[in-house]
Amino acid sequence: MARTRHKARQTKTVAEKRNDPKKKQSPAAARSASSRAAHDDKEVMALKLKPAPPSPAMADLFKLCEEKLGFVPNVFKAFSFDMAKLEGFVGFRNSVMQGESGLSKVEQEMIATAVSTQNRCYYCVTSHGSAVRGLSGDPILGEQIVMNYRAAGLDKRQRAMPDFAVKLTVEPWTIEEEDRERLRRAGFSDRDIWDIAAIAGFFNMTNRIASAIDMRPNSQYHAMGR
Amino acid sequence: MARTRHKARQTKTVAEKRNDPKKKQSPAAARSASSRAAHDDKEVMALKLKPAPPSPAMADLFKLCEEKLGFVPNVFKAFSFDMAKLEGFVGFRNSVMQGESGLSKVEQEMIATAVSTQNRCYYCVTSHGSAVRGLSGDPILGEQIVMNYRAAGLDKRQRAMPDFAVKLTVEPWTIEEEDRERLRRAGFSDRDIWDIAAIAGFFNMTNRIASAIDMRPNSQYHAMGR
Amino acid sequence: MARTRHKARQTKTVAEKRNDPKKKQSPAAARSASSRAAHDDKEVMALKLKPAPPSPAMADLFKLCEEKLGFVPNVFKAFSFDMAKLEGFVGFRNSVMQGESGLSKVEQEMIATAVSTQNRCYYCVTSHGSAVRGLSGDPILGEQIVMNYRAAGLDKRQRAMPDFAVKLTVEPWTIEEEDRERLRRAGFSDRDIWDIAAIAGFFNMTNRIASAIDMRPNSQYHAMGR
Amino acid sequence: MARTRHKARQTKTVAEKRNDPKKKQSPAAARSASSRAAHDDKEVMALKLKPAPPSPAMADLFKLCEEKLGFVPNVFKAFSFDMAKLEGFVGFRNSVMQGESGLSKVEQEMIATAVSTQNRCYYCVTSHGSAVRGLSGDPILGEQIVMNYRAAGLDKRQRAMPDFAVKLTVEPWTIEEEDRERLRRAGFSDRDIWDIAAIAGFFNMTNRIASAIDMRPNSQYHAMGR
Amino acid sequence: MARTRHKARQTKTVAEKRNDPKKKQSPAAARSASSRAAHDDKEVMALKLKPAPPSPAMADLFKLCEEKLGFVPNVFKAFSFDMAKLEGFVGFRNSVMQGESGLSKVEQEMIATAVSTQNRCYYCVTSHGSAVRGLSGDPILGEQIVMNYRAAGLDKRQRAMPDFAVKLTVEPWTIEEEDRERLRRAGFSDRDIWDIAAIAGFFNMTNRIASAIDMRPNSQYHAMGR
Amino acid sequence: MARTRHKARQTKTVAEKRNDPKKKQSPAAARSASSRAAHDDKEVMALKLKPAPPSPAMADLFKLCEEKLGFVPNVFKAFSFDMAKLEGFVGFRNSVMQGESGLSKVEQEMIATAVSTQNRCYYCVTSHGSAVRGLSGDPILGEQIVMNYRAAGLDKRQRAMPDFAVKLTVEPWTIEEEDRERLRRAGFSDRDIWDIAAIAGFFNMTNRIASAIDMRPNSQYHAMGR
Repeated sequence: MARTRHKARQTKTVAEKRNDPKKKQSPAAARSASSRAAHDDKEVMALKLKPAPPSPAMADLFKLCEEKLGFVPNVFKAFSFDMAKLEGFVGFRNSVMQGESGLSKVEQEMIATAVSTQNRCYYCVTSHGSAVRGLSGDPILGEQIVMNYRAAGLDKRQRAMPDFAVKLTVEPWTIEEEDRERLRRAGFSDRDIWDIAAIAGFFNMTNRIASAIDMRPNSQYHAMGR
Repeated sequence: MARTRHKARQTKTVAEKRNDPKKKQSPAAARSASSRAAHDDKEVMALKLKPAPPSPAMADLFKLCEEKLGFVPNVFKAFSFDMAKLEGFVGFRNSVMQGESGLSKVEQEMIATAVSTQNRCYYCVTSHGSAVRGLSGDPILGEQIVMNYRAAGLDKRQRAMPDFAVKLTVEPWTIEEEDRERLRRAGFSDRDIWDIAAIAGFFNMTNRIASAIDMRPNSQYHAMGR
Repeated sequence: MARTRHKARQTKTVAEKRNDPKKKQSPAAARSASSRAAHDDKEVMALKLKPAPPSPAMADLFKLCEEKLGFVPNVFKAFSFDMAKLEGFVGFRNSVMQGESGLSKVEQEMIATAVSTQNRCYYCVTSHGSAVRGLSGDPILGEQIVMNYRAAGLDKRQRAMPDFAVKLTVEPWTIEEEDRERLRRAGFSDRDIWDIAAIAGFFNMTNRIASAIDMRPNSQYHAMGR
Repeated sequence: MARTRHKARQTKTVAEKRNDPKKKQSPAAARSASSRAAHDDKEVMALKLKPAPPSPAMADLFKLCEEKLGFVPNVFKAFSFDMAKLEGFVGFRNSVMQGESGLSKVEQEMIATAVSTQNRCYYCVTSHGSAVRGLSGDPILGEQIVMNYRAAGLDKRQRAMPDFAVKLTVEPWTIEEEDRERLRRAGFSDRDIWDIAAIAGFFNMTNRIASAIDMRPNSQYHAMGR
Repeated sequence: MARTRHKARQTKTVAEKRNDPKKKQSPAAARSASSRAAHDDKEVMALKLKPAPPSPAMADLFKLCEEKLGFVPNVFKAFSFDMAKLEGFVGFRNSVMQGESGLSKVEQEMIATAVSTQNRCYYCVTSHGSAVRGLSGDPILGEQIVMNYRAAGLDKRQRAMPDFAVKLTVEPWTIEEEDRERLRRAGFSDRDIWDIAAIAGFFNMTNRIASAIDMRPNSQYHAMGR
Repeated sequence: MARTRHKARQTKTVAEKRNDPKKKQSPAAARSASSRAAHDDKEVMALKLKPAPPSPAMADLFKLCEEKLGFVPNVFKAFSFDMAKLEGFVGFRNSVMQGESGLSKVEQEMIATAVSTQNRCYYCVTSHGSAVRGLSGDPILGEQIVMNYRAAGLDKRQRAMPDFAVKLTVEPWTIEEEDRERLRRAGFSDRDIWDIAAIAGFFNMTNRIASAIDMRPNSQYHAMGR
């Protein structure tokens, strides 16, 4: 008995420590926090590539991002050493993520996040996890997709999407008609299946580019949609 | 040219939608959010096991948790169908996580989180990711460990910990003297190596118990330390 | 002795069979061969999506392909249900594969093929294996990259490319500065590293889209560059 | 013919050698054997941690082990540098392995052994393989669980246990309601499922602690239950 | 619009380059091609082992190969440092691949190739991929088995073979009665199952010997059956 | 204190149970044990294939086995439905395992066992683990190779063998000159490397044939060399 009480006291001490504001945020830790954010906001990637002058279209895009998000996403800055490459990337992204689709915006972002988590991509999990939180208005859903989409209690339709996308991520060579049929049975048209495939494919690309060059997410993403 | 402008307009439209408060949080989404939180707070796990009356020591522990955290962590509730099991678990946890150690509190939680992320455990990533944020006072560090500790820019000492712990998680049979030597070269004593091993082992257990029974994290964890 | 002779005779019988033209290509097998080619040339993919009328730019592209290759690659046909998607894809592909680069054309295709083989993608191994054969004028090099690039006896520079690209394909989360340094030591600039990353990323996308929809390579690829 | 006879003679020669007592146990080999046993019995682990004086409870436990087993299991000696840690571990182990359970003792040890084999843990396969042999009175069952439980011809109930425990070991994030349902259909209650999960979790911990510190099994285990 | 036209022009330029005979086969590339073939034909393997004088039976075999294939397969040359080993290998190969069987010759080679592709064995994929092309008279079938047998549109019977063989290659410990039953349902007798198992086993051996010693396929294989 | 004593009592109770001869070997368990041995000795494999009359050479071999081992290994019985296949297998086995070699008998069996353990093959781990015990006169060495060869404290030379053989088993396509060099630095000649490769290859075959047909080891192996 005495021993268990003793343990409760130990617990208390630790719990107290955890709530001790002086301990929790020592000056060193606070400095580290701000330098961590500063680092991600300043060092866009590990490659030394000089930004080119923005083309008119890309200058417009940057301005729009500043107005709407308050910052230019670092993925755009990373491609900015070559305007043709940035325009090619933005054009393709728009064609994959912004056309008409049977998938809702948040469903698209759920696929993006589930794939990015499978590939453990810091940049994409940060930015698209943020999008799931923001678009769904459900911060817990965002966390669940980031941590393990199987724990999110998705309905049959929404569950079929990351099941397909993650299998396609891990073992693309095993996808067969049966897998497409499963999506159809969950209510998706062939046109929807294209979108699921294209989004899963797209993030398997961006995850790898981001990891290859250590692309850093803008620090603002972390707080958005909380 | 015209076409690129058109794309910028498309982008604008989407960006606007994302910031449209009516879109962002439709009544349905808001309902879904609150029911998601409610679910996790009410359904502690997937097994139907009736809580036993708390033993005095455990009643003390619950009271302490309420005072300090504002809630009783669901892991304690899950074990509560049998007070002997709960006491055994709490005693062991305290011996692993709360004794004297050469590792700081936040270092211990970084190991816990890195292992839990490797095992994609919703409960433990949520609760220990929260602890990393809280103890470090650095929310971005918490996110980095949750997403990919290799992206956190850790110094040599702190990097050696999750490297060892994650290798031990994935391929425990390949750990050899060389791996322990790497920890020693990073500044850890044999006593510290024990702690790293014990913490990594401990979370390889809790991750699996939590996954086996679908243990749900208290919804409060998600917002802590942001 | 007699026994070994007997075996040699067995061998002979089989070897003879293998060279027996009647056996080698029974009418059934020949039929099967031509229907296999016919299938791949007619059934572009497993999704039922009706081609849209080509946009002027895409009509130009198709005409150019017919003139230069003798056929329109099925990947373009697969995207043709939506001209915006096809244009987005072609634009991005061109920005990745056809701009100025420190990598030669055949080096780019070696990366494409090594990644596609890792992902066991029938469409992309067929079409890009063909490109390696054609661009190098070395059919055996093409086969080596298709089967196991480690067997190709590549020099230090060319070997470093698929080593990075395949690691990025299999475990993107483990790529770190050390991996980029290895490329630099093999003679690649930061600008080259971008290209290696972008090409590897690009084929991790196309491999998955192709596998997701069972995209079939035009039969002509198989014979090209032999 | 002569050749095959010759081979039979070769076989004979080898078989004879294998039964040649002088060959079988050369002085060097015998020395090696005893030094191997001596090593495992003396070097408890790879960490240099000085045993603390046993607490009264732990002194009792050691005395009991000596009386009943003839030795103190090295796992207890490994934890002995800190009595609080040893007591925490023993308390938890007892709560997992020694309370009331719907699983028989040998079923518990079968789970322990199957998990430990999956993790290729020398200490735990040795000690718990020994327990399966001893408790079942069936040395061949012990070997089958050590080598591949799928070869043990287990009945539906006993087979469901290691299937769940090993899946939980390898891919804990994929366990879902369907997996729990499979256990229920095999006759297990929710209370039993807890025990299966807790035992599988427990050995995923001890396997990793043992591997991390190169814990050596007492040599006596090898001969027990043969 | 102008921009897309520009891209079409870029495409054209590249396509033209690809068909430019001077570019396609620069003197350097041509040299490299022939030296690649020469290397594979001369350097049989990475081990320095001197050929022994052929035994009479093996001399007969070599002569037969020269007559029928135009060359002695390098696998025979690799074993030639010891005639007993070569005879043992040839005898076993004949017993596995050349006796009576319910599997056709091309079915046997399809299994050999699917296993060799799983193991990414340059020697065996080259030589047995060639055999599939030659025996089936269907070069595209050969390529499909080399790249991903799942893309070959095999009928139920022929599909069941590589499914079993590849599972046996990757996770042999998980094969159970259910897997054999699947083969029986696809029309195979127990005698046929033996052959599938033996062929899959045989190539899991040769793949590893070939990879271990860097065995080089005779260059002629690449062009056979095209 | 009382509580810890109580736990010691619990331990005692269990320990007593484990030593209770009535508990340890209930009539049911004993029956199960003998029927398990009987099963393995009677049901050689899962395929229904009728033994053919032994050829003279194989009749000699069987007689020799009976004289020397007391039984005919089930692997020979499994091949006996076709004497040509049995003779082919035995001839190859002898050429791999019984010729002159720079590896000692026990070293050959260590490779066989390490590979078989990697492949979790019940038949081969049983029979070759037994051979390691018997040939070394060191039962603990046999257990260590069966459980995790990395725990066996092998010297540099003997350690290099299973390191190469297990890598060759798991990822044969990654073996390169560097791996062979490591063997050479550990003291092996090119001729020895051949033997290591051939033995590793051979057991990758037999492991898969045994697993494919559920080959059962003779029960006598389990007790040999203890």
